[in-house]
Order: sequence, then C-alpha cells, then structure tokens
Amino acid sequence: MKRMKATIAYDGSGFAGYQVQPDSRTVQQELMNVLRTIHKGQTIQVVASGRTDARVHATGQVIHFDTTLAIPVAGWLKALNVLLPEDIRILAIEEADPAFHARYHTSGKTYRYKWDRSQIISPFTRNYMVHTKQRPNVEAMRQAAEAVIGTHDFSSFCAANTGVVDKVRTVRRLEIEEHGEELHMVIEGSGFLYNMVRIIAGTLMEVGLGRRTVDEMARIVAAADRSAAGKTAAAHGLYLENVAYTD
Amino acid sequence: MKRMKATIAYDGSGFAGYQVQPDSRTVQQELMNVLRTIHKGQTIQVVASGRTDARVHATGQVIHFDTTLAIPVAGWLKALNVLLPEDIRILAIEEADPAFHARYHTSGKTYRYKWDRSQIISPFTRNYMVHTKQRPNVEAMRQAAEAVIGTHDFSSFCAANTGVVDKVRTVRRLEIEEHGEELHMVIEGSGFLYNMVRIIAGTLMEVGLGRRTVDEMARIVAAADRSAAGKTAAAHGLYLENVAYTD
Repeated sequence: MKRMKATIAYDGSGFAGYQVQPDSRTVQQELMNVLRTIHKGQTIQVVASGRTDARVHATGQVIHFDTTLAIPVAGWLKALNVLLPEDIRILAIEEADPAFHARYHTSGKTYRYKWDRSQIISPFTRNYMVHTKQRPNVEAMRQAAEAVIGTHDFSSFCAANTGVVDKVRTVRRLEIEEHGEELHMVIEGSGFLYNMVRIIAGTLMEVGLGRRTVDEMARIVAAADRSAAGKTAAAHGLYLENVAYTD
Repeated sequence: MKRMKATIAYDGSGFAGYQVQPDSRTVQQELMNVLRTIHKGQTIQVVASGRTDARVHATGQVIHFDTTLAIPVAGWLKALNVLLPEDIRILAIEEADPAFHARYHTSGKTYRYKWDRSQIISPFTRNYMVHTKQRPNVEAMRQAAEAVIGTHDFSSFCAANTGVVDKVRTVRRLEIEEHGEELHMVIEGSGFLYNMVRIIAGTLMEVGLGRRTVDEMARIVAAADRSAAGKTAAAHGLYLENVAYTD
C-alpha cells in the first residue's frame, strides 16, 4: 500500500464545491470516479486539505489517497490528467510517507481573493474575479489589513452556526496587491474558519469603498462577533493557492 | 432614426457562434433579445462586421443597429450591459453616420490565436487557449509566417466548399508573440476567408513542431489548394480583436 500526495488545480465554476454531495457535481466525486476506473471498480477514498465552496477555485489544493497499484509517479500524473475532466488538473503527484495526512498535517494555507476594477468587466473573467466598479482606496485597505494580522479570536470573521468551538487562528500575512486593473488580497495563516477569508475580503473592501473607517477594523476583530464585520465576499473571487505541511 | 455603432466582447464558450440559428444560443440572438426589450417588443436588426464560429471569442467585434429611441450614449452602454448576459459586454457605443455599415465598410480586421505551452494546461484557460504540450520552434514559425504576408490567392487557407469566388486577400501583419508560456499569433489583413486564420495557425504550428519545413510555406501559399495546407486549428484559441473602418 502506497500513500500518494497530489497537488491539484480546479476551476470551481462548474462544481457544487469540493466535497461529495448527492446529485451534484463535485471535485471529490470526479477524483473518486477516476480513481475507481484506474482501480477497476474499487472505491478509493480521497482526502483533501479542506473543502472549498461552490464556485471557489483552487490553484494549489492538496489531496491524498492510498493505492496498491504499482504505477510510477509519471504514470499517475498522465493517467489522472487523461481521465479527469478538463476543469480539474493534477499539477504534481508524489509518493508520500504512509503517515502523511492532507487534512490533519497542514501547517498553513494561502488564499488569494481577486477583484477586477475595470469600468466594464471582461466577459472572460466574470467567473474568476469579482467586479468592483467603484475604485477602492487601496492604501486604506492595506492599513485596515494590519489589524487582522496576528493571533486573534476570529469569531467576527466566521460564518454563524458552525460547530467549531476554538476560533483562535493566526494570520501571518495579509497583503493587498495591484496587478493592472486587478486587485488581489493574499492571506496566509495557520488555518481558516468557515468563510473567514471571504468575510475578511468583504470587510476590507467596505473599508476601501469608504463605508467603514480604517480604525474600525481593530474594533471589528476585538468584537469577536460576526455581526460586527462586513458582508461575505462572493465565492468566485476566491482561490486556494497553497497548502503547507510540516515535514 | 439613429444608427448606433458598438464595440463588443464575448466569451465564445457558451455560444453556437455569432449568427442566429434555430434552437441555438447565439450572440446575435442575445443582442436582438435585449434590443427588443428596450424597444418594447419591436424587432431590431443587428449587423456585425462578420460572423464568428462556435467557441470563437471576440474582444473587439463591431456591430450596428438602428433606433428611434432618444437614449444618450452613456444610457445605452448601461442599459445594454445590465440586460445582456455576462458573457457578452458592450465595451463602447456611439452614434454613427447613418451610412455606416458594420459589415460592408470594414477596411481590415485583426485576429489573435492563443496557444498554451505549459506542460499541464491550466483548468482556467482550457476554453481560451489551445494546449501544445510539445514545445514549438518559434523562430521557424516566424520565418514561415513571412511567406503568408502580402497579397495572395489564399485558396490554400480557405475551407473547401465556400461560395466565395475571389480568394485574393492581403495579410498586412503576421506576428508570433511570446507571453510567458503563452504563444500568440496576431494577424491583420484586409479581410479573411472562412477558416483562413485557423488554417494559417494550424499550418504554422505544424512548421513549429517540425512536421513541415519553413520552405514549404511559400509552396503551400502558391498551391492555392486547401489540401496543401495543414489542419484547421481549434476554434477556442481564436479571438476577433479589432475591426477597422475607413473614415
């Protein structure tokens, strides 16, 4: 038995999210379908670093699965990419330590959130960026972001009614990048609560658009109350970019 | 009565092409549907610079239509973009000379064809570029392109069985550009025969991959015979980028 670790990318537009659910097209189901074909009908469990919601993209999601097949690494890469639908790609695959776990052993994750500041949004990016017609104040967003960095109880940035008890997380990096008309928020942390990245993105954009002040951000963090923060930014601007593991 | 001229972009992925056809989603039909709504049920004809095939994109297609409505230009831009589906955008609109004709008065067109040379094609570009896993010889493609520039009978690069009699066209510019892993062919000319850009792209790529020599290109042009040229490159790599008009 070998444990395989793979880094995958997917265009979230055509999926009801990562995780298997009845009567919906999901990334996990597509991966399992292909692994079942390769294993001649045997069900192979696939474990990811975490779920992503409907329309959320990934450029560096990590999964693992176990196999008894003696296929070399290059063969796995080729076979999976030939059999998978084109909106999921295996970027890299390797044999991992048998104790490696894609979900339990993560030491951090990086997400990217993309806005398009063009006057008219391109038809080619409509599923990949969120349009903000009004131009946000980038400097204000950067200043507000400072209050988010560090170890905090992130209850203000967590969807209500999740079962999670400990809401303390560490945000190590939170940057606002400008790429032409694109505006990106890049956030790296120990781990993220449900909707945490999208609520931070939505709140920072409210600061950028002058609907909230820079000073408010520290108070929103300290409130530890979801109703203190801004709206959850739309799913299709979000990318899971990297998953880190302690070796 | 005013004649309006609009520059539009569309993601060809979800369309059976530009031109109206029964039981298919087309760009022209979507435009006419929206204009009918704005004109309270009246049918408004839409004339484009030319058709594009299924899955072909446009970043600078030009259309015209006539209206009796007294809507200012900014109002047209807003109303059309609010009502149109997100995969069609009006980039600019203006009142044109009543004699302006989007199809008959074109003085030239520019198309762009995009390949992706990445080892693994990104799931985000699968509908927008054609994957070429084997790395083409860009210098050879550039040399072969020289034979295409100028005024020629382009029968070798025209889909068989078109009704067009005069197949003489002028290619003013034909460049191969590298943008990271992307490879673009940019072609500008007086006008193009059916599938001409895609057959030129397909043939140049065959030169790039060593399946044809650079010297062959001049002979292919001179043959004036479709069977002399290479395969028609896939539709989803093609973009109508600009339409020029004589003033």
